[in-house]
Amino acid sequence: MSEDLVKVKTIAVLTSGGDSPGMNAAVRAVVRAAAQSEINVYGVKHGYYGLIHDEFVEMDTHSVSNIIQRGGTILKSARSEEFRTEEGRKKAADNLKKYNIDALVAIGGDGTFTGANLLSKEHGVNAVGVPATIDNDIIGTDETIGYDSALNTALEAIDKIRDTADAHERMFLVEVMGRDTGFIALETSIASGAEIALLPEELTNVEEVKRQLNNMLKEQRRSSLVVVAEGDETGGAIKLAEKIKDDFSQYDMRVCILGHIQRGGAPTARDRVLASRLGAAAVKVLIEGHSEVMVGVVNNSLKLTPMRVAISKKKELDHSLIELAKILR
Amino acid sequence: MSEDLVKVKTIAVLTSGGDSPGMNAAVRAVVRAAAQSEINVYGVKHGYYGLIHDEFVEMDTHSVSNIIQRGGTILKSARSEEFRTEEGRKKAADNLKKYNIDALVAIGGDGTFTGANLLSKEHGVNAVGVPATIDNDIIGTDETIGYDSALNTALEAIDKIRDTADAHERMFLVEVMGRDTGFIALETSIASGAEIALLPEELTNVEEVKRQLNNMLKEQRRSSLVVVAEGDETGGAIKLAEKIKDDFSQYDMRVCILGHIQRGGAPTARDRVLASRLGAAAVKVLIEGHSEVMVGVVNNSLKLTPMRVAISKKKELDHSLIELAKILR
Amino acid sequence: MSEDLVKVKTIAVLTSGGDSPGMNAAVRAVVRAAAQSEINVYGVKHGYYGLIHDEFVEMDTHSVSNIIQRGGTILKSARSEEFRTEEGRKKAADNLKKYNIDALVAIGGDGTFTGANLLSKEHGVNAVGVPATIDNDIIGTDETIGYDSALNTALEAIDKIRDTADAHERMFLVEVMGRDTGFIALETSIASGAEIALLPEELTNVEEVKRQLNNMLKEQRRSSLVVVAEGDETGGAIKLAEKIKDDFSQYDMRVCILGHIQRGGAPTARDRVLASRLGAAAVKVLIEGHSEVMVGVVNNSLKLTPMRVAISKKKELDHSLIELAKILR
Amino acid sequence: MSEDLVKVKTIAVLTSGGDSPGMNAAVRAVVRAAAQSEINVYGVKHGYYGLIHDEFVEMDTHSVSNIIQRGGTILKSARSEEFRTEEGRKKAADNLKKYNIDALVAIGGDGTFTGANLLSKEHGVNAVGVPATIDNDIIGTDETIGYDSALNTALEAIDKIRDTADAHERMFLVEVMGRDTGFIALETSIASGAEIALLPEELTNVEEVKRQLNNMLKEQRRSSLVVVAEGDETGGAIKLAEKIKDDFSQYDMRVCILGHIQRGGAPTARDRVLASRLGAAAVKVLIEGHSEVMVGVVNNSLKLTPMRVAISKKKELDHSLIELAKILR
Repeated sequence: MSEDLVKVKTIAVLTSGGDSPGMNAAVRAVVRAAAQSEINVYGVKHGYYGLIHDEFVEMDTHSVSNIIQRGGTILKSARSEEFRTEEGRKKAADNLKKYNIDALVAIGGDGTFTGANLLSKEHGVNAVGVPATIDNDIIGTDETIGYDSALNTALEAIDKIRDTADAHERMFLVEVMGRDTGFIALETSIASGAEIALLPEELTNVEEVKRQLNNMLKEQRRSSLVVVAEGDETGGAIKLAEKIKDDFSQYDMRVCILGHIQRGGAPTARDRVLASRLGAAAVKVLIEGHSEVMVGVVNNSLKLTPMRVAISKKKELDHSLIELAKILR
Repeated sequence: MSEDLVKVKTIAVLTSGGDSPGMNAAVRAVVRAAAQSEINVYGVKHGYYGLIHDEFVEMDTHSVSNIIQRGGTILKSARSEEFRTEEGRKKAADNLKKYNIDALVAIGGDGTFTGANLLSKEHGVNAVGVPATIDNDIIGTDETIGYDSALNTALEAIDKIRDTADAHERMFLVEVMGRDTGFIALETSIASGAEIALLPEELTNVEEVKRQLNNMLKEQRRSSLVVVAEGDETGGAIKLAEKIKDDFSQYDMRVCILGHIQRGGAPTARDRVLASRLGAAAVKVLIEGHSEVMVGVVNNSLKLTPMRVAISKKKELDHSLIELAKILR
Repeated sequence: MSEDLVKVKTIAVLTSGGDSPGMNAAVRAVVRAAAQSEINVYGVKHGYYGLIHDEFVEMDTHSVSNIIQRGGTILKSARSEEFRTEEGRKKAADNLKKYNIDALVAIGGDGTFTGANLLSKEHGVNAVGVPATIDNDIIGTDETIGYDSALNTALEAIDKIRDTADAHERMFLVEVMGRDTGFIALETSIASGAEIALLPEELTNVEEVKRQLNNMLKEQRRSSLVVVAEGDETGGAIKLAEKIKDDFSQYDMRVCILGHIQRGGAPTARDRVLASRLGAAAVKVLIEGHSEVMVGVVNNSLKLTPMRVAISKKKELDHSLIELAKILR
Repeated sequence: MSEDLVKVKTIAVLTSGGDSPGMNAAVRAVVRAAAQSEINVYGVKHGYYGLIHDEFVEMDTHSVSNIIQRGGTILKSARSEEFRTEEGRKKAADNLKKYNIDALVAIGGDGTFTGANLLSKEHGVNAVGVPATIDNDIIGTDETIGYDSALNTALEAIDKIRDTADAHERMFLVEVMGRDTGFIALETSIASGAEIALLPEELTNVEEVKRQLNNMLKEQRRSSLVVVAEGDETGGAIKLAEKIKDDFSQYDMRVCILGHIQRGGAPTARDRVLASRLGAAAVKVLIEGHSEVMVGVVNNSLKLTPMRVAISKKKELDHSLIELAKILR
């Protein structure tokens, strides 16, 4: 964490990795907070791809009008194989120099921060990360931008499925996003009143799942919902259905994979406020001379985490919520 | 269509087949309209299964309070293999006699009407059908109850997917409901501005689909949405992806299957008003002595269609909308 | 209705009057349908004000990407006192000539069509009207663009109010838009299960309203909703509350005025499809040589109505729905 | 805080005060957590009124099925003048004894807790409070149940108003709930990108408001949103409009009062999870022998606050958010 007192005159901002609702609110906050401090801003289109291929656009207060409520990202996102090479990153750094850019704000998840961190190490680029991913798997912040929106989108979908499950007294296996972590699966299962949640963090015993479902059936519960994180080691909802359907053949078991709807849509209030806080904070800490850090909100206060720490491990689930799900089911 | 002038004193109402948003509004309208005419109402739980197994519940105005906005059906729905047998239908008819029921209101799709029609033919049961299915595939009515809600649910999901498609400049293949008919696929494709819609009613030429997608890419359109009806003869979105992905390997093609979320949720204004009209109309035509008819709204007026006609064929798509989709894409 | 066979090469499109959800979908359809027929399009900003003040913008297929789902209007709307003068309209007509514009598509309500009609009469401007207003008060079309969206927005708000009314067993007077017509009030009252609807089209007898509310209270109904059109001759919900509150002092009566939320938001599927049909139809009829007409959809078919007829009177409510509301309350 | 080690066998639960989304989820959690510990539960209808008038209903796991997603409260809420008298509270306490109730869970805001506290003091009733109010004004918890839902409802409404403000380039004054506190006003103003927020916690200088609005107009911002808390000392949006309209006569200034829609609707994921945590926690702390405490979640951990402290003052706004709003406007 270097603390140069060189005045920051120009910054660049990009979004990278999977898009998440609230990225636009974060971009807006970066641009507006910079404008307040008379810092120039370039938006870089298509993430690291655009950094290499010189897709820089000047932005001002007006460029970010009326975007706070929009899903997706006006800066676009993209993969860049080239950026995984030293040569690619060299080109990126050269472009940053060409535009006299003092610092980079990188909005995204751990892949995004890994990229920014390499740019810092190899080329001395000042960089601040803003955590935005629907997976909520980044340490150093209580929540990531987009998580709350994805949660509510998944929940509204499950509410609809519950209507049908209830009308037909059926069993539904619903797969939600979460390759490595079960945040969405755990919280939607509590919030939807699902009977069971299968999480990547916990070993799933298929026999135990069957036993629990059977118990519920005995209790006169005639519809049931199982929420499955896509990264659960059973292999997801379709594979789980294959494993248990013979034992519940009297049931009309159905599978729903919520998929990409969880990434889009207007961000919730919480995500917009979080994105606004973190976007503004990114500019503030750059001005203060920080680099190679990620901004986060922990216990309602701004917290800085070194990027290398932020990318070193995944955030853990709150175990009290796992217990809660079991009590209330 | 018999026109007995015997006074209707007691009726039964059931929901059957796939649930659709607005079924509760229709049940409410049947009960309230009957109450206005001093007719007693029994609700039959679990459709034809409950008719056989004597799941009759007395209903009054208060039984249907505060349900107009709910998805699913408070009367539940179920399959009944037994009702497919003469013996099963005999039991059903006996139960209707046991409760002195003069007529049956059957809310559902063509399977529901086929059942009601058999009861009428074999046992002289007076029956009126109310078309409720998200597929909109019933002739004799401009729309079926639940179609508008399903359409809007699918559309909101596609809007969210568009956010991500746009952010990542990706190609998305989105599968919507519609086993035999493409109503949802066609209207959501127009309403979402999708690039292509694949409908069961039209022969899909995969080479032509590829050609069109390629043209769009040439036009600088960098994201694209293809809406696929589940019953399209390509076999749905996953199979389509397999057939075309090699030709678009530079694209990050994604598949979304919207699935059962399309059946649930609070009904739209249009579905609630339609359900209210048709539920009340069902009672009215029973009082007037009609039977073996389905009530519908055509050109904004009530229309009766003999049940055997209603189940004789599927409704056709409006070809002008197919043309419109092509002009506006 | 003139039918010149002169080829249409360039058209202009504007939105005017109160905005309604779906206006953007209509603009998109005009632009895309014109592009299909190799017609150039100018968008005119700020309605008739921009026509006078030369706010013309060239539009192509890309200008209208990703707007179909947006509320409001990208062309903006505005009042123009100047356009009410002959001199103002002369300037507008001169601008249309300056850009070699063959015809004007005017999207809006009756005020919009009155303006277009004057331009036609005084300066021979070819003009086609596209009905877009949340009020649904235009004859010559079964629905106007924006009506279905406004209805659903109002309904969702009333559903929320019903939750509170039900929890507290309160009486709510909810005012919805509709200065001269009760379309929104009537359909939302049916769809929300409101106890009473007060419509501008019917004389409201306050004593009768009190009597009905008292009857409901006697029937053990402990919460109640009254939907009031803003144009009802009682003067709206606040004035109604003043007139009846003394008779229901044991109740905790509350007033909600839904207001401008009814104008905004993403359009529903129905409004987007209608806007797409009418926007494309406007271009088609211009090519065919029609002028001074409004396009509409009646009984699911395209219908042309002379503009002077369209502005000559308000559409009437469907009286069968008024009866239905009374039966089901 | 007494810590009797007497085993808890039977508890009662009630909801009181203004309803808020998530109350049902809290009731469900109380009932399910109690069932897990083999504790009997009575639901008391209509809050303290029902406690006096013996409206006790036995509840079990099935009584709370399928309510987690519902707004309002199945236990209803009501005012009770009688409970403000010693005599009334004596009756309430007698009823609790009659049913052998060991402890009371009171779900609501500060008025609710004041009532529970008096019961404890005067009659030794063990009581735990669960904070549920859309106002978020209770100390001892980071958020109250219902706040997040109200925030999102208000925000969605403001998003719709922004569409119209933007289309017409108008100035809108939007009033949100908050009699004594500006939580909803502050967070919705940030999340909606409003130009100004007027909060009860800050002295509003009308001349300063005018100056700021004028500056924005000079900056080419042609639409603007002012969010006003109902409790702002200007007197709310209507009064504010009267004070400033003459200075902005060129603008078509409009007022919207969002009102009671903010209380209803399905709770958000966050509110359902919070309500589930707090409902379960209330049972847990009763078993542990606590009384006269309120359960809350602070920094993501369960926290107990003595009821007398919880009702002693209002929670304060986060001043960093007030600053943030100013930077980003």
